[in-house]
Amino acid sequence: MARACIGIDLGGTFIKFGLLGEDRQTGARLQLPTPRDGGAEAIIARMVEGARKLAAEAGLGREDLVAVGIGAPGPADLRRGVILAMPNLPGMENVPLARGVGEALGVPAYLENDANAAAYGEFCCGCGKGTRNLVLLTLGTGVGSGVIVEGEIVHGSHDLGGEVGHMIVQVDGDPCPCGQQGCLERYSSAAAIARRAREGVEAGRPSSLAEVLRRKGDLDAKDVEAACKAGDALAAEVWDDGVRHLAVACVNICRVIDPDLIVLAGGLAGAGADLLGPVGEHFRRLHWSLTAPRTRIVLSALGDQAGVIGAAAVAWRASRQS
Amino acid sequence: MARACIGIDLGGTFIKFGLLGEDRQTGARLQLPTPRDGGAEAIIARMVEGARKLAAEAGLGREDLVAVGIGAPGPADLRRGVILAMPNLPGMENVPLARGVGEALGVPAYLENDANAAAYGEFCCGCGKGTRNLVLLTLGTGVGSGVIVEGEIVHGSHDLGGEVGHMIVQVDGDPCPCGQQGCLERYSSAAAIARRAREGVEAGRPSSLAEVLRRKGDLDAKDVEAACKAGDALAAEVWDDGVRHLAVACVNICRVIDPDLIVLAGGLAGAGADLLGPVGEHFRRLHWSLTAPRTRIVLSALGDQAGVIGAAAVAWRASRQS
Repeated sequence: MARACIGIDLGGTFIKFGLLGEDRQTGARLQLPTPRDGGAEAIIARMVEGARKLAAEAGLGREDLVAVGIGAPGPADLRRGVILAMPNLPGMENVPLARGVGEALGVPAYLENDANAAAYGEFCCGCGKGTRNLVLLTLGTGVGSGVIVEGEIVHGSHDLGGEVGHMIVQVDGDPCPCGQQGCLERYSSAAAIARRAREGVEAGRPSSLAEVLRRKGDLDAKDVEAACKAGDALAAEVWDDGVRHLAVACVNICRVIDPDLIVLAGGLAGAGADLLGPVGEHFRRLHWSLTAPRTRIVLSALGDQAGVIGAAAVAWRASRQS
Repeated sequence: MARACIGIDLGGTFIKFGLLGEDRQTGARLQLPTPRDGGAEAIIARMVEGARKLAAEAGLGREDLVAVGIGAPGPADLRRGVILAMPNLPGMENVPLARGVGEALGVPAYLENDANAAAYGEFCCGCGKGTRNLVLLTLGTGVGSGVIVEGEIVHGSHDLGGEVGHMIVQVDGDPCPCGQQGCLERYSSAAAIARRAREGVEAGRPSSLAEVLRRKGDLDAKDVEAACKAGDALAAEVWDDGVRHLAVACVNICRVIDPDLIVLAGGLAGAGADLLGPVGEHFRRLHWSLTAPRTRIVLSALGDQAGVIGAAAVAWRASRQS
């Protein structure tokens, strides 16, 4: 590989690294455990270590490394490259992450929200190649999202764009820790589907999931999916309700920005056709009849590499502009 | 005025004309009745007549007229400048309006959706001056909308962007002629507020509006506003419900594109503080607590001139790009 950017995806458990060439070909990748006790210094050191290792493995000379992009969760001042806080990592308050990593590696480094980076990854190198407008929804513990309009990540006027997980899809609905009621992620995240099934069991609804809960001590979305396929009524109801609210959000996304694609990613997207089939049905049913639905709902093509690839693509984008 | 573009706003009753200078100063304006019986030919001839008259009045030489922008309702192929249909004007199917007007005047002409044009007008010359992201909602017979992201009108991938009037704000809600249920415009347009109050009266709800309905034969949103201010319970309920659903849409707009401004326009915006006050209260209540609300909700600054000014601004924008 000639000139390349390194993408880094900072998660609570792992830090992932990947190379992206000038021709948008992906290269070597790597993951290292996230140091949880050393604060910002340890995180930065681990990022530098991983980036150097990856560059060495790929035989990338110093002058061939163009820039580094870092995708991270939580509130950030993206322009300044500063992490304001990280939900599950102590010591990450007001950390100038981009500067720390960039100075150590001797190249420019850029910070991006992790869901935005994943959306940009799919846009540049995944299922969004050749499109102009795309929204990615990561259905995991919460619902992360990234919005691409005319090829650019939508940051909004206050770096709060692309928070579709907190779109209100049910007025006066389920309270969300964010302070709103009826947010998408209260119905359609993997965690919400598990939680709502568990609540049903605990409320005494008859379900095969009662036995699973007893055995495992908890439920996850895969349990609900399996029970749903086996004909369990509670599981089917929770799954359908999650999927239906997801379809409402998809219609509303179309009404604001009318994208080519809505990309479903994250744990729940592992359900594949069991997710895509019913989402598509609800979407077509809820969608207006003025025009046929033209926005396509698809599964992520890059899976858990979307964030790393997108972070590298963000670095390419920024280094071409500067 | 030296060099200028002419903006034309095609409505069902009037065609409005206005001048916009290179320095974004607005100039002379004019309105002529919309010819309803002569089909496309008569519409085009009236547009050409108005534009020539306005240019003459302003002492604009032939070489000073840079381009013409036309804002029109209904489905259109904007790139080709073709009106596909107009809801209330017969003979407007597949009309190459931009070419017809442009060739007669001897300048380039550009077609834009009227609500998009109004949003762009507020963005360039009205309350959105100096912002980057803005959404305009026109609360009239329906709810029209235009979405501006990073200074550009969002057309979407299929020219269906900026249809916020058909955002679903109430799952399984009121059926909309568009085929969806629970669309914003079923609750928050001027017409919806009038209709819902009338339905309440007809259902036998005690209300001072019963007498108004008897006297006038119908109700409008102004009647509901007046009754609401006078303490009528039915009117207050309908007004509040409309305003609350509008606030839900505002929160959801923030979650997708996080604009600087949401601009309220159209007939209902005539209520001024009676609209803005309660919308702001609901918005702050419904908005997450993760950050204070930073998107401001404001009234249109340009009123019914936003469309004309915006159409001219669209012409400036396009002529600078070509």
